[in-house]
Amino acid sequence: MREDGRVTQLHDLSSRGFASDNYSGIHPEILEAIVQANGAHQIAYGEDVYTTRLQEVFARQFGEGVEAFPVFNGTGANVTGLQSMLPRWGAVICTATAHIHNDEGGAPEHVGGFKLLPVITADGKLTPELIDQEAWGWGDEHRAQPLVVAITQTTELGTAYTVDEVRAIADHAHSKGMTLHMDGARISNAAASLGVPLRAFTRDAGVDVLSFGGTKNGMMLGECIVVLNPAASTGLKFLRKSNMQLSSKMRFISAQLIALLDGDLWLHNASHSNAMAARLRDALESAISQGTITGLAFSQTTQANAIFATLPAGVADRLREHFRFYDWDATKNEVRWMCGFDTTEDDVDMFVAAITRELS
Amino acid sequence: MREDGRVTQLHDLSSRGFASDNYSGIHPEILEAIVQANGAHQIAYGEDVYTTRLQEVFARQFGEGVEAFPVFNGTGANVTGLQSMLPRWGAVICTATAHIHNDEGGAPEHVGGFKLLPVITADGKLTPELIDQEAWGWGDEHRAQPLVVAITQTTELGTAYTVDEVRAIADHAHSKGMTLHMDGARISNAAASLGVPLRAFTRDAGVDVLSFGGTKNGMMLGECIVVLNPAASTGLKFLRKSNMQLSSKMRFISAQLIALLDGDLWLHNASHSNAMAARLRDALESAISQGTITGLAFSQTTQANAIFATLPAGVADRLREHFRFYDWDATKNEVRWMCGFDTTEDDVDMFVAAITRELS
Amino acid sequence: MREDGRVTQLHDLSSRGFASDNYSGIHPEILEAIVQANGAHQIAYGEDVYTTRLQEVFARQFGEGVEAFPVFNGTGANVTGLQSMLPRWGAVICTATAHIHNDEGGAPEHVGGFKLLPVITADGKLTPELIDQEAWGWGDEHRAQPLVVAITQTTELGTAYTVDEVRAIADHAHSKGMTLHMDGARISNAAASLGVPLRAFTRDAGVDVLSFGGTKNGMMLGECIVVLNPAASTGLKFLRKSNMQLSSKMRFISAQLIALLDGDLWLHNASHSNAMAARLRDALESAISQGTITGLAFSQTTQANAIFATLPAGVADRLREHFRFYDWDATKNEVRWMCGFDTTEDDVDMFVAAITRELS
Amino acid sequence: MREDGRVTQLHDLSSRGFASDNYSGIHPEILEAIVQANGAHQIAYGEDVYTTRLQEVFARQFGEGVEAFPVFNGTGANVTGLQSMLPRWGAVICTATAHIHNDEGGAPEHVGGFKLLPVITADGKLTPELIDQEAWGWGDEHRAQPLVVAITQTTELGTAYTVDEVRAIADHAHSKGMTLHMDGARISNAAASLGVPLRAFTRDAGVDVLSFGGTKNGMMLGECIVVLNPAASTGLKFLRKSNMQLSSKMRFISAQLIALLDGDLWLHNASHSNAMAARLRDALESAISQGTITGLAFSQTTQANAIFATLPAGVADRLREHFRFYDWDATKNEVRWMCGFDTTEDDVDMFVAAITRELS
Repeated sequence: MREDGRVTQLHDLSSRGFASDNYSGIHPEILEAIVQANGAHQIAYGEDVYTTRLQEVFARQFGEGVEAFPVFNGTGANVTGLQSMLPRWGAVICTATAHIHNDEGGAPEHVGGFKLLPVITADGKLTPELIDQEAWGWGDEHRAQPLVVAITQTTELGTAYTVDEVRAIADHAHSKGMTLHMDGARISNAAASLGVPLRAFTRDAGVDVLSFGGTKNGMMLGECIVVLNPAASTGLKFLRKSNMQLSSKMRFISAQLIALLDGDLWLHNASHSNAMAARLRDALESAISQGTITGLAFSQTTQANAIFATLPAGVADRLREHFRFYDWDATKNEVRWMCGFDTTEDDVDMFVAAITRELS
Repeated sequence: MREDGRVTQLHDLSSRGFASDNYSGIHPEILEAIVQANGAHQIAYGEDVYTTRLQEVFARQFGEGVEAFPVFNGTGANVTGLQSMLPRWGAVICTATAHIHNDEGGAPEHVGGFKLLPVITADGKLTPELIDQEAWGWGDEHRAQPLVVAITQTTELGTAYTVDEVRAIADHAHSKGMTLHMDGARISNAAASLGVPLRAFTRDAGVDVLSFGGTKNGMMLGECIVVLNPAASTGLKFLRKSNMQLSSKMRFISAQLIALLDGDLWLHNASHSNAMAARLRDALESAISQGTITGLAFSQTTQANAIFATLPAGVADRLREHFRFYDWDATKNEVRWMCGFDTTEDDVDMFVAAITRELS
Repeated sequence: MREDGRVTQLHDLSSRGFASDNYSGIHPEILEAIVQANGAHQIAYGEDVYTTRLQEVFARQFGEGVEAFPVFNGTGANVTGLQSMLPRWGAVICTATAHIHNDEGGAPEHVGGFKLLPVITADGKLTPELIDQEAWGWGDEHRAQPLVVAITQTTELGTAYTVDEVRAIADHAHSKGMTLHMDGARISNAAASLGVPLRAFTRDAGVDVLSFGGTKNGMMLGECIVVLNPAASTGLKFLRKSNMQLSSKMRFISAQLIALLDGDLWLHNASHSNAMAARLRDALESAISQGTITGLAFSQTTQANAIFATLPAGVADRLREHFRFYDWDATKNEVRWMCGFDTTEDDVDMFVAAITRELS
Repeated sequence: MREDGRVTQLHDLSSRGFASDNYSGIHPEILEAIVQANGAHQIAYGEDVYTTRLQEVFARQFGEGVEAFPVFNGTGANVTGLQSMLPRWGAVICTATAHIHNDEGGAPEHVGGFKLLPVITADGKLTPELIDQEAWGWGDEHRAQPLVVAITQTTELGTAYTVDEVRAIADHAHSKGMTLHMDGARISNAAASLGVPLRAFTRDAGVDVLSFGGTKNGMMLGECIVVLNPAASTGLKFLRKSNMQLSSKMRFISAQLIALLDGDLWLHNASHSNAMAARLRDALESAISQGTITGLAFSQTTQANAIFATLPAGVADRLREHFRFYDWDATKNEVRWMCGFDTTEDDVDMFVAAITRELS
């Protein structure tokens, strides 16, 4: 290293909260994969050996014939994947709480040029019946054509679709000439929650294109568009570039994905973050049932690494003096607590103690 | 590390060529910066301490009042930066060899929605006179309004604008109500070539918005939109998100940029890659003047880390059996040789020897 | 006329129904205006005397300082007007039944690049409370920024906002930094229904930009974007062209608009179509109250020229053997009956008779 | 007519110049067709009898199997037609003087989202060799894929492609996997100039999609996208709507097109405007050869209804005191004179006299 190299750690290493699973850093094994992929030259833009190997890794998880397109982030994966499934006149049926509808800054419309048809749900999950609220009007050029159904697994509300629920949606979508997209920003948490292989509730259940999430599960950055059904997607090679999601030194994204998926790190991390959320919820439910705390209610079931709860007015802000987390719906005093691969039992226990102090 | 962690180095560490400065890996100091930025929690999407610190680093290089927006890649930086300078009806005057026109997969038009007005040049450099070929028609709604001039420094042809040349372009653009964008994918090579500070040929010369390049100069990935003149750009906070260029764990991009810019690593790396290109060119020019080799001619001056040359038919392909590089214009047997921060003197000397074998 | 001129009337002049007010033809006075505007040369693209005069006509109706931009159709007027009110990262709060959301083929997203935030309503009318369902998240780049509220007057469900209702929405929108757009495809019907001048429920009530509808009220084609508050709109001159809504022989659109608005033809036509809808509804309500017919219920109030009703299964199809009209919500056997400027009392009476035959 | 109907002729019926063929009004036969199509109800949005009949009219001119989509204007026809030929990552090779590149306000990029690859020509005409300047890079996602060649007939410089020239371009484009679009804003002038049927230099020569121009040849407004090769175009039904080019009362556009094309009015009008341009040029060439006038030179051949000429400085402005026309390239004192279906021999002769006064 050159003498004047100034690499400095600026941040407080003790800081950890429940704000988001992307507040975390890089899992050590994934960081090591970046280190291992370094050095010498590799062909840019995806013709490197890591990206080639990544295809095999995805094939092992999802079956032969899938195609993996590493990209930078979740919004890029979702918008580009959806665009590859849609003609210019297509529209996407999704939930009103979907990340693509609420949290992507209008990228689906602005970059993708397609319409979202949001449906209000109780728990973040679509059903064939809910889909049918917007699944109509094919052939009528006055209506943006609903050609894709998009679901998120696990959902933005911390719930998980069962294998049968995904299959029912896929069958319904396909029966109407639509295809099925899954935003899998937290797909590993879903697998951990359901206790089944990744392909069980994706390819085998009829999902056509998947955004496979890496960043929230321990990567520095990187997601992957996975085409499970090549007949349902076209032009991703070109769209990834024109949507500004083509990494030159792609080996470093692919190596991270390999580190996550080649062994069981993906499952290990997700199982842990789910367990931490369960630990938090269990402790609070115990306290409620024992009457130790009052005023807290859960607004969604906890099937992965997120907890949604309502609190008495003012409590959230006081808790946030020591633990960072977000309001979900401030008008209802509803908050969201996320656990990550790096959440510790101590983190949870200290948070429970703090909540208990506030609500006892 | 978990027992079953499988982090494997897949690639040949001896492989290195002259194809592109993004075939290289991560400079060790920058990799160390990623390591240092790891651990604990940081607020996502840019409210971390590294991104905060980055503002200071850029202020030191470019002066107070500049605003830095880290993004994923060069196409993202260019398109998003340009979009922030343009109303929906704007157009950009650039060279016909500009990266934005040739190598961004139509992203300026597809994502940005704006027109490029390319001008043919001899050496990749615009001049006021060349700009005037397209600088007309303001107020006429039939013509996409030319409101931005875009230059690349160093250019796609390996040439560098002098400070005075940039200033002349900036003054000319401003006098006609246009603003000036610089694609600085290789801006450090320009500073090294000109022997002046970064701000001398950017902010001080009248550049309004800059794409500061990191990837080609030793980063894993990451570029930075730098608003040198805040009056010339609007909405980047929102555009970066809607253009899918907002990194959640932004600390890792910012930490890399800090490692590059806080000391002189940016200059060290660029000077080295320029020197390696000079070494290559000098050796070949010597050989030509001594009559040792024949049939090679240089098609552009070498002012940074790129060499453009024409070769007898068939030679390029034979050289490529051992050294990877690209054709630039196959119809003219013109090739491009790029050096990077990791090119060694040995690499150059072996390549010279190979060329000599072919052309002697 | 040349000898071999073959101008032939192909259609059945007796055909008339209740499908839509754009099934009608051209009002004779408007056709005469086209004839009068013909001959000789006029500067293309809006510098003609008719378009100049049109500015005065709109100023008389809406007050000094308004700016009128004739365009081809309602979708063009809405999307272009909204785009002129929004930065690239903006979003529009509208009803779930809004024409821009349901009937413009995704043009707001596809051409405009902006997101719609639809809100479910009972009667097609927004309120400040309903607006607040989506009016949040300013400054958060993850959320497409809600910067415009869009209402339709009269609504797609045949209801009309009162002056006070519009003003309450405008005040609410403005207090939150948003502006107000009105889709006035049937604005004349609203004025006729409310019995007030056009400006009373538009400019004077706080509407910023208006799509003034001509086609449904007797024009051959043509709508007009009317900027009531120039501070709320930018670039329409350029956007109209780049959105492909700039007519070369604009005099013929402007002359039609003058014919409609210079006198009281706009009000005459709209009052008539409202009266025909009232005649139809009154007759049916009488029949219901007298027990002459059963099985028909009205699903919306009739405040203009549209009637929404539910019918016993099968009735709609039998009626359609002689009178064309559309299902509104086939799952509820709900139909829509529209009257136009050319609907006659006989048309209504024959239709009432037919309905009575079916339902008695 | 109602008593207070105020239909007023505002314009000077004697005004006529050489500015543009869209300064003219409506040909009487076409106006009569509008009158004949009026009255009673017709299904909106193209299911009317006139639009149905129009298909037969186009089939007679261009052969069985063509599909005609009436739209509002030339920009709408070009952008929508081209979009139907291109995937999202496609690009269009055109001339640097093409209307789509210079005169559509950036609509191809802004609405269509596709890149234009302009090629500099001497006379506004592409050739296989010129096309090859930009016909490369297929399969490389960094390059917007050149998938369509677009030509204009007659060109923006008043020249006409011969049948063989069009066929050579079509064959060349097809051999490289590209398709061929023709902007036929003045297609009738081309047919008149070449003395061949419309299909001879379009469908029979290999053109895949055509913008058939009506407005400049006597219509009030209206162009038609004509799909000559259905395999080369997809989704026009939906794109026409989402691109805001779907007319509700379409019968009035279709009736005009029928009036133009069902007999020979299209050819009659175009032949006349060509003849007037020839008269103007012939008179001036005579004067030049006789030495009556000096200082005028023709900068393009006149093969249709446009003349391009250079004049001594100041002459154009003095001529414009009485005859309106446009500068083409003010830096060269180059002007454009257009004749239309309504240009009279007297118009030409008076203009020749005026020019003679200036230049003798």
